[in-house]
Amino acid sequence: MADLSIAIDAMGGDNGLKATVPAVIKVLKKHPDINFILVGQEKVLRRVLGKYKLDKHPRLSVQHASEVVAMDESPALALRNKKDSSMRVAINLVKDGKAQACVSAGNTGALMATARFVLKMLPGIDRPAIVYAMPTVDQTTGERGSVNMLDLGANVGCTSEHLFQFAVMGSVLSEARQNIKNPKVALLNIGEEDIKGPDSIKHAAKMLADTDGINYTGFVEGNDIFKAKADVIVCDGFIGNVALKSVEGLASFINYNIKSAFKSNLLTKLCGILAFPVLLKIKKNLDMRRFNGASFLGIKGVVIKSHGGADSEAFVSALEVAVVEASKDLPGRLHNKVESLMGQLDAEG
Amino acid sequence: MADLSIAIDAMGGDNGLKATVPAVIKVLKKHPDINFILVGQEKVLRRVLGKYKLDKHPRLSVQHASEVVAMDESPALALRNKKDSSMRVAINLVKDGKAQACVSAGNTGALMATARFVLKMLPGIDRPAIVYAMPTVDQTTGERGSVNMLDLGANVGCTSEHLFQFAVMGSVLSEARQNIKNPKVALLNIGEEDIKGPDSIKHAAKMLADTDGINYTGFVEGNDIFKAKADVIVCDGFIGNVALKSVEGLASFINYNIKSAFKSNLLTKLCGILAFPVLLKIKKNLDMRRFNGASFLGIKGVVIKSHGGADSEAFVSALEVAVVEASKDLPGRLHNKVESLMGQLDAEG
Repeated sequence: MADLSIAIDAMGGDNGLKATVPAVIKVLKKHPDINFILVGQEKVLRRVLGKYKLDKHPRLSVQHASEVVAMDESPALALRNKKDSSMRVAINLVKDGKAQACVSAGNTGALMATARFVLKMLPGIDRPAIVYAMPTVDQTTGERGSVNMLDLGANVGCTSEHLFQFAVMGSVLSEARQNIKNPKVALLNIGEEDIKGPDSIKHAAKMLADTDGINYTGFVEGNDIFKAKADVIVCDGFIGNVALKSVEGLASFINYNIKSAFKSNLLTKLCGILAFPVLLKIKKNLDMRRFNGASFLGIKGVVIKSHGGADSEAFVSALEVAVVEASKDLPGRLHNKVESLMGQLDAEG
Repeated sequence: MADLSIAIDAMGGDNGLKATVPAVIKVLKKHPDINFILVGQEKVLRRVLGKYKLDKHPRLSVQHASEVVAMDESPALALRNKKDSSMRVAINLVKDGKAQACVSAGNTGALMATARFVLKMLPGIDRPAIVYAMPTVDQTTGERGSVNMLDLGANVGCTSEHLFQFAVMGSVLSEARQNIKNPKVALLNIGEEDIKGPDSIKHAAKMLADTDGINYTGFVEGNDIFKAKADVIVCDGFIGNVALKSVEGLASFINYNIKSAFKSNLLTKLCGILAFPVLLKIKKNLDMRRFNGASFLGIKGVVIKSHGGADSEAFVSALEVAVVEASKDLPGRLHNKVESLMGQLDAEG
């Protein structure tokens, strides 16, 4: 494997250094062929690394950045005023070829705006999309997997062309990240029949069905997301964002119900202790931290967004996403796929 | 309370008579002031009621209908060709004033199309909306409640005027059904800041903020649905349908995980038996059957849609929704509210 570097916005997210540094230390050991660059206030970072006796590690370096983008800062203002933020400097490292990916748990809007401004879009892709791997299980066989769902909030009001581009990008991602040959691509709709839904979705369905090299399988509904029906599910960013947050909301609601039921009295607490090994297994299977790390697809460079509230374990997952996408040169693969499809369109035209 | 009648499409749904008849028998006892009319094939219905010794019950009658709308039948064809279906005859009873509500577990599209065609819209309401009460819990106080969410799939591509009308209807529903004074009305969006989301939502927000008699409280996100942040949540039908089905999908995913973890070996099965009382309580709290029964708001008459797969217990919940909405004369209340708001608009204009 090539000599790759990952740049980390060490200051970003609700937990900042407390999450990012322990996560990098963990991943550093696991990937002996990858360099990590911690971006942030140098003095602070050096002091923290000193504590871990890692200040002279050959594959761990520090890049100074004097500012930090706040979680609630306006993306436009962050882009204009915070030119020396840890987020921006990490993205600059990708632009200058000093890193092959960057990871941040910071402000999503600012990260998207800055990445798009600094790195630019891949040719043939109009808009970047946020993609996230959701857990799936085939309830007949019990087989577990994941589905890449996009867009989850970068775009409101997508045309059929945008949806088509998201489908292409999602397909390349599934091949690269989950090693799936000929991944099944579906469009999210409110019914499985061809006549259902808005025109943008119906037209995107036609475009995808007519394209060689994309394994388009039809419409799926919201209740199919977790059922392993498709490898890629494509939707408008508004829809995807509402779906993602609604399921987060239900997960929190169910979690609250389970906890409060076991905690309600001494007897139920005892039940909880007796059932502990099973509850732990359930918790592990449902632990969304394992799925942390959303990719910004369509940008010239690997940019991974960690959940803002990620702890170090969740941040490890986001770093692993960056490692895979950098190792597989995802932007290069996307570029090649788009070029080959454009050739197909030219030949048809 | 007045002498009210509820018409039931006895043949509709995946379970037909097996779900509807036992449910009606249960509700019949509970509400000694309400008549129930079972609509369907008379011979079959009389035979079933005979078994229960209810063929001569003074408050339970049978209305013959020779046809049944299939679950997968085209709504347009059902509307045109099935004029003597159990669904249509039940709706006709509402039109003729012989029933004050009708309930069906049949084909949603056919029920909506037929209800709209036979009963017509209330003046001032352009489109009907599907509304469903979702369970909520305030995770700080532990207080449980519900939120009326609409539209859940009747409309794709709503304008700000449609969203405004849904908000008005949801507000009247919360007052009538949950007895909430001045219910909190929110719009579903992808951020809480005023600048977020498509123009239709931003404009609806302005209209609602400017209207006396609607307690508009701002935007909520998908993860707020189950948090008791609002009494009414308004959204486009495409968005609402995807959100509803996505949470159904996650609920099924979590349910599968819990079941398979407890079933995996003898030891975990034992854990499950020991934790059984608590698991039962959790199941009860999360049992969506208690929330079965979606209203079609904006139509001149109470039309309640039960989930197609409802068992008799779930169908009881849908019947209870019909009883409340008929008793409270929901269409009359909606009509009055719309008239008073129109007066307000006229006075302003």
